[in-house]
Amino acid sequence: MAGADQPNYSETGGPAIYAEDGSIRADYLDQVTAAIAAGNAETLGEVTAPLHESEMGDLLATLEPAERQELVALLGESFDYSALTEVDEAIRLEIITVLPNEQIALALQELESDDAVYILEDMDESEQADILARIPFTERIRLRRSLDYPEESAGRRMQADFVAVPPYWNVGQTIDYLRDNADLPERFSQIFVIDPTFRLVGAVDLDRILREQRDGRIEEIMRETRHAVPAEMDQEEAAQIFERYDLLSAAVVDENERLVGVLTIDDVVDVINEEAQEDILRLGGVGDEELSDSVVETTKSRFTWLLVNLGTAVLASVVIGLFDATIQQMVALAVLMPIVASMGGNAGTQTMTVTVRALATKDLDIYNAGRIIRRELMVGVLNGALFALLIGVVATVWFSTIGLGFVIAIAMIINMVSAALAGIFVPLILDRLGVDPAIASSVFVTTVTDVVGFFAFLGLAALWFGI
Amino acid sequence: MAGADQPNYSETGGPAIYAEDGSIRADYLDQVTAAIAAGNAETLGEVTAPLHESEMGDLLATLEPAERQELVALLGESFDYSALTEVDEAIRLEIITVLPNEQIALALQELESDDAVYILEDMDESEQADILARIPFTERIRLRRSLDYPEESAGRRMQADFVAVPPYWNVGQTIDYLRDNADLPERFSQIFVIDPTFRLVGAVDLDRILREQRDGRIEEIMRETRHAVPAEMDQEEAAQIFERYDLLSAAVVDENERLVGVLTIDDVVDVINEEAQEDILRLGGVGDEELSDSVVETTKSRFTWLLVNLGTAVLASVVIGLFDATIQQMVALAVLMPIVASMGGNAGTQTMTVTVRALATKDLDIYNAGRIIRRELMVGVLNGALFALLIGVVATVWFSTIGLGFVIAIAMIINMVSAALAGIFVPLILDRLGVDPAIASSVFVTTVTDVVGFFAFLGLAALWFGI
Repeated sequence: MAGADQPNYSETGGPAIYAEDGSIRADYLDQVTAAIAAGNAETLGEVTAPLHESEMGDLLATLEPAERQELVALLGESFDYSALTEVDEAIRLEIITVLPNEQIALALQELESDDAVYILEDMDESEQADILARIPFTERIRLRRSLDYPEESAGRRMQADFVAVPPYWNVGQTIDYLRDNADLPERFSQIFVIDPTFRLVGAVDLDRILREQRDGRIEEIMRETRHAVPAEMDQEEAAQIFERYDLLSAAVVDENERLVGVLTIDDVVDVINEEAQEDILRLGGVGDEELSDSVVETTKSRFTWLLVNLGTAVLASVVIGLFDATIQQMVALAVLMPIVASMGGNAGTQTMTVTVRALATKDLDIYNAGRIIRRELMVGVLNGALFALLIGVVATVWFSTIGLGFVIAIAMIINMVSAALAGIFVPLILDRLGVDPAIASSVFVTTVTDVVGFFAFLGLAALWFGI
Repeated sequence: MAGADQPNYSETGGPAIYAEDGSIRADYLDQVTAAIAAGNAETLGEVTAPLHESEMGDLLATLEPAERQELVALLGESFDYSALTEVDEAIRLEIITVLPNEQIALALQELESDDAVYILEDMDESEQADILARIPFTERIRLRRSLDYPEESAGRRMQADFVAVPPYWNVGQTIDYLRDNADLPERFSQIFVIDPTFRLVGAVDLDRILREQRDGRIEEIMRETRHAVPAEMDQEEAAQIFERYDLLSAAVVDENERLVGVLTIDDVVDVINEEAQEDILRLGGVGDEELSDSVVETTKSRFTWLLVNLGTAVLASVVIGLFDATIQQMVALAVLMPIVASMGGNAGTQTMTVTVRALATKDLDIYNAGRIIRRELMVGVLNGALFALLIGVVATVWFSTIGLGFVIAIAMIINMVSAALAGIFVPLILDRLGVDPAIASSVFVTTVTDVVGFFAFLGLAALWFGI
């Protein structure tokens, strides 16, 4: 979560604190916990000094809650608060809650503005206000402005420090300004060009400046900033612009096209990861869960999904109930019926997964939808026919009833085709309705495959055997 | 897939070719297809000239196969081949197959080396060799070297052009060198420092050079390159280093620590996306499928997964078959049994999804595994109890048999707890065995929940009712 203004590499020659499997090395962890247990601030400081903020974040996540708080207390001013941007929200809040606001305010002033906003945005309003009141005016205004933008917007994620020069300067003036100005952002990769009212007129990459003679004029070497990001834009949309145009950083502008900050690729990488994570969890029937959530939170967040599933499972049972007389006559039907439903469910999930991803990556549109639908139908028919043959033979041999083999084979084809149709149309329709297909598709798809599966198999059996 | 050496922004003021939903605007597409149909190279050139390579990629994906080939043929030398790095492999090969090798060789020389390698690596060996033979020596050696590294390694993804200076130069010399040298990479954000044998000794970011006086010595302002990436390293591992340390670019070194290239964040973003995509598809029971795959390819790739599922479904049926006499006595059991299995399957999928993700992001390790296992078990017990109560009441009312309510309630608790255990231990064990948990977990988890669900419910019923 650190800005691009952080050093490109960890500049310290710290120890390799990770074991082969990516966890913190046991002997390193022992050193840290021993120093915490002994209340030895000096040793703790020496042991943790070489850590990159993300290494410190991993260390915090590995420690017990009480140890985390003691570590921060022991390190005092030498604790790098940007490490808090690298841990789960639950851990962050747990650490911050025990710190006095005065200390948090001091710490935030040391951070880049995007990291400070990241820490502030999770706090409740009164605490946030109290901490902001303790921060000097200029920096406070800057943080306030970011916090005023909507959650998960480009304005929230941007870095408010940047370098900007007027278009009539030349390269020499610009280099001299950079050499003499101590108050530059920690890291920057482009210089923005603005007019006197702070409106963005262009940008120059640093390599362009370095190639140019000293008398080259900025307005002649600057390029258009076609992909400036409005501060109100959702971070996911901004991430898509970065991906599409291979941007390393982009100007963030307010509603009057005035430059207010810069969004950098490393923040965008975090957004991309968060969005992919969200899709995976949603497809698995899990909401916005974190590994550090409590039992009660986790139970609650999963309950809703399971309740919906209970409803659809009962619906499938009602369908089975329609044929109770048939089942009583021929118990083999009860034995075989889950196979038809299960195969349909899996085939439907396959098609649905592909559709949901294609929608998320915008690879599925009105031009290829027809082709994709035809392909999925054909795949459903082909795999349906293959598995109809397989299961037909198995059922015939198992129960020595050739009729049963025919019935299950036909039911299999019907359900595999329904699975393909449900797998593609459910996400498409949800997307059209403005509902995230990742969150709701799988329950509808499996409802279709369960209901169709049981109904086709038991209904055909009732007809075939006349019971 | 373009290197960071591509312009940060599309420098042309091209039209907005996308509609609201992210697809290509219909009227723009009409212009393009009309020009192709008329064989009008001039109009086609004008209409497509302002496109960024990724926009051209989207356009190609939207066109029909024949139109794609005609577009490339009509544009001739003015076609930007880097657009081929933005489309699916199937589309890329389809376009390349019809082009003469001579033309491909010329086109590749215009590209950055990482883009050229990206296009070359999918070709069959004889064609690759023929094209390489037509490329001038220096550039050929460079491409050959990348291609000699394993697939999906850092060496394959790296850009072979970089700027390197000796440590004894000063800032002024470096800037003069950059000003006078026409043969620099298109874009760069850091300068590497090497000894006479090309061994990497450090790096300097461009902003650091711009802040420094002309007489500042490079070796004094350079920083250690702690996170140089070995060329043999898997791209996913390299991506994790970028993420962990918020890198924008990293030196790629060979086995003798000699600098051979530079890996940039935009390539890493592609890797991150590919890996997330892979996890999502694998969890959905789909292999490395692309939207442009044919019906036969798709059917084949999904068949294996469905076949495994058929095996586990038959296994569950065998379990049901053990109780056929019980079911014949009480058909209500057949009606209710899918509910227990389905709820277990969903709860198991939830736990499994969280576990698989935590393993992929390395958030789950030996330190918190115990805590996570306890949490999942508690969640299983709690949700199990809640749904046991719910379904117990439903079953009792539905079939007016209080015993049935008790039996299904107890079976529900047993299966929800089994689901939690399977959901966490199956991925953990697969991971320990070196198998990707995303690819195989879900089949094992649902096998457990099906078998346990049917066995617990039908077995308890047989005991309770003595049938």
